[in-house]
Amino acid sequence: MRRFITSIIVAAAAVVAIAGTSQEEIAARLTRSASNHTIYPETNLPALTPAPAGYEAFYIDHYGRHGSRWLTRQSSYQRPVDVLMKGHNDGLLTEQGERLLVTLRQILAASMNRAGELSDKGAEQHQRIAERMYNNFPSVFTDGAVVDARSTVVIRCILSMQNATMTLRKLNPNLRITTDASYHDMYYLGYGHGEDTLANHISDEIYRHTNEMYEENVHPERFVKQLYTVPDSLPMPVAQRLMRDVFDIAGSLQGHHAFDNIDLFHLFTGDEIFELWRMRNIDWYTRRANSPMNGNRMPFITRALVRDFLDKADAAVASGEHGAALRFGHGTIVLPLACMLELDNVNLSTTDLDNLHNVWKCYDIIPKACNVQLVFYRNAAGDVLVKALFNEHEATLPVATDMAPYYHWKDLRAYYEKKLATEIDWSAHAE
Amino acid sequence: MRRFITSIIVAAAAVVAIAGTSQEEIAARLTRSASNHTIYPETNLPALTPAPAGYEAFYIDHYGRHGSRWLTRQSSYQRPVDVLMKGHNDGLLTEQGERLLVTLRQILAASMNRAGELSDKGAEQHQRIAERMYNNFPSVFTDGAVVDARSTVVIRCILSMQNATMTLRKLNPNLRITTDASYHDMYYLGYGHGEDTLANHISDEIYRHTNEMYEENVHPERFVKQLYTVPDSLPMPVAQRLMRDVFDIAGSLQGHHAFDNIDLFHLFTGDEIFELWRMRNIDWYTRRANSPMNGNRMPFITRALVRDFLDKADAAVASGEHGAALRFGHGTIVLPLACMLELDNVNLSTTDLDNLHNVWKCYDIIPKACNVQLVFYRNAAGDVLVKALFNEHEATLPVATDMAPYYHWKDLRAYYEKKLATEIDWSAHAE
Repeated sequence: MRRFITSIIVAAAAVVAIAGTSQEEIAARLTRSASNHTIYPETNLPALTPAPAGYEAFYIDHYGRHGSRWLTRQSSYQRPVDVLMKGHNDGLLTEQGERLLVTLRQILAASMNRAGELSDKGAEQHQRIAERMYNNFPSVFTDGAVVDARSTVVIRCILSMQNATMTLRKLNPNLRITTDASYHDMYYLGYGHGEDTLANHISDEIYRHTNEMYEENVHPERFVKQLYTVPDSLPMPVAQRLMRDVFDIAGSLQGHHAFDNIDLFHLFTGDEIFELWRMRNIDWYTRRANSPMNGNRMPFITRALVRDFLDKADAAVASGEHGAALRFGHGTIVLPLACMLELDNVNLSTTDLDNLHNVWKCYDIIPKACNVQLVFYRNAAGDVLVKALFNEHEATLPVATDMAPYYHWKDLRAYYEKKLATEIDWSAHAE
Repeated sequence: MRRFITSIIVAAAAVVAIAGTSQEEIAARLTRSASNHTIYPETNLPALTPAPAGYEAFYIDHYGRHGSRWLTRQSSYQRPVDVLMKGHNDGLLTEQGERLLVTLRQILAASMNRAGELSDKGAEQHQRIAERMYNNFPSVFTDGAVVDARSTVVIRCILSMQNATMTLRKLNPNLRITTDASYHDMYYLGYGHGEDTLANHISDEIYRHTNEMYEENVHPERFVKQLYTVPDSLPMPVAQRLMRDVFDIAGSLQGHHAFDNIDLFHLFTGDEIFELWRMRNIDWYTRRANSPMNGNRMPFITRALVRDFLDKADAAVASGEHGAALRFGHGTIVLPLACMLELDNVNLSTTDLDNLHNVWKCYDIIPKACNVQLVFYRNAAGDVLVKALFNEHEATLPVATDMAPYYHWKDLRAYYEKKLATEIDWSAHAE
């Protein structure tokens, strides 16, 4: 794969999250190393800027990822158990290895028939997000307000919708809430049914590259040595896979109350944890974000979704009604959507992958239940402003404004309309 | 297939629905001919018998089918359009045939990407059932009452749950409602994951028989003649399939507000409608109910579900709490469940299929949103009674009682426990 040459375009926007290097941030909270498995960061959320005088929120355009879930493949739990069980049967495990096997078998048993499903914490994340949305914007959720909730056909998303709408219903029983989850809406809500299908080959090409990166950079010798009495018990690919599998499970445990007292990060050094995260960060960036490696095309897989945002906002502005369009889906959509909308610096374009971890951190961008809220305000004269929340932080938007974090809807709308018209050559290969 | 010899066992229980022959009932309301596509019959529901003095309802054990839906296969809408389109292109359609093609294409367009999904009326059915459940048994749904709602993993069931629980939440925001839809629960909630898998061969064998019945008894000549200018335009199997497909669509239209003004029954004579229903009635009875043809075994595919009913009832009785276990699934489960529980005369066993339509009518048993509610009552002394509602009609149960429609839980529980222990030889062929 040839090296890509593209100028680095770093948005001047505010940094998404708290200051600090990713090394420091991960050391301070190891769960961040889980990348997209990081639980929704909802403590210490910043206060929101009051609406400008005379303006009141009336509509929210939303897309949210499902909450914490079980790993999507049963094999992710099964495979490391199988490997260690063989070591156990051959008498090759250390005491630490035996303890790990016991723990992994316990997790495997709990995971049976749960692959990919929403967890208890995932349900709670959506209850709390909905509660804060209601409390932040009570003027949106007035009696009779229309809440049009839609989900992809994937169960964890439907149950996320269920938890969100049940919470809104409790807070105001007089909302007019409708819910749906249909293949009919998948072309804009989901993955694999719309423009993204044209981009599959790009994702596949980059995957081959990031997979090579893992093969070159995962060094499992120390990790395996603590588990096996005989060095070189495992062929390199098996050892690498075991280390990665245990790391994935370690990161996923934070999504379940039942595993609150289980820690598997202690099997890894700080450097190993950071390096495993750094590679995943590059993988997410190059495959799903505004990376030159994908030809800066991936954000455009959400074109139909942004179209839906604009159309529903237009209808809300025109109708004069109050309400919200809530959409429940996946991180593979939230990431390119945040790029497409140019929230904060998520849309960063850089070829310098060695420095990526200093400027773009996936744990802030696509944790579980990550979400975009475009909040619409109007005044008595009918002027419309919009504010963006990304994971409930006020985000910068790609047009000028004299009243940040509020933007003039007419300017933003025009900017997005122009961007939506961009022609994309999906047939070209990845860089 | 040899003729089965089994004594006719007609339960002495009350007849499920209003008196009248099925011919009369279908003529009075053609939508009943749609069998399991019949909308939930919720007008003129009978008043419920007040609780005996000193007893109060505290718990409901429930299983409900999803509400009205789109036909499960896109091909059900597509196939008749393809056949008629060919007739159109060949210039063979009558004016009536052309009109039917226009109508079917309109329905096909509306159905795109909706196969199997819950309809608008289906959602409303579950809202109303939940509202009546709440109003019928307010002492169950007190502040803090636990509502444990579970669905199969099929979206129309999840959205049925969503509509039911959202309604309960509105009626009492202080219910403690949890929802789930997981493969973890499919062995008792769903089809194809539990004991029923042992019965697949039986269902398949009977299907071959009922299919032959259709081949012998569907006479499409008159039906086709009104659509095609040239008699014998269609080979017999195609003509039969067309007649059955149009009949299925005719029956399904009642599930959608958008089709309230479309009628396709006018293409059939009363006798044809009755005969097409009668065969479907035999099909449902022999494949899924307590028919000697399946060895009176099919009810037992719900053994794990009845086990769950008993276990959760035991827990509710023991805990002293208020609440409900709500389960959302399929008609293929409600029917054998109603047989297993021996509600009214649903569990009828008869070899006289020529007379079946006079004693067992599927439109009363498994319409859309059909449901079973076992309602538990207790008095200050801790004595527990139970009442069964089947499609919201008080139903008889298979033990003696001195206070019908209330039964002593201890007697009923013992009866079901004994029945659950029945050994079934799933390997034997169908009769």
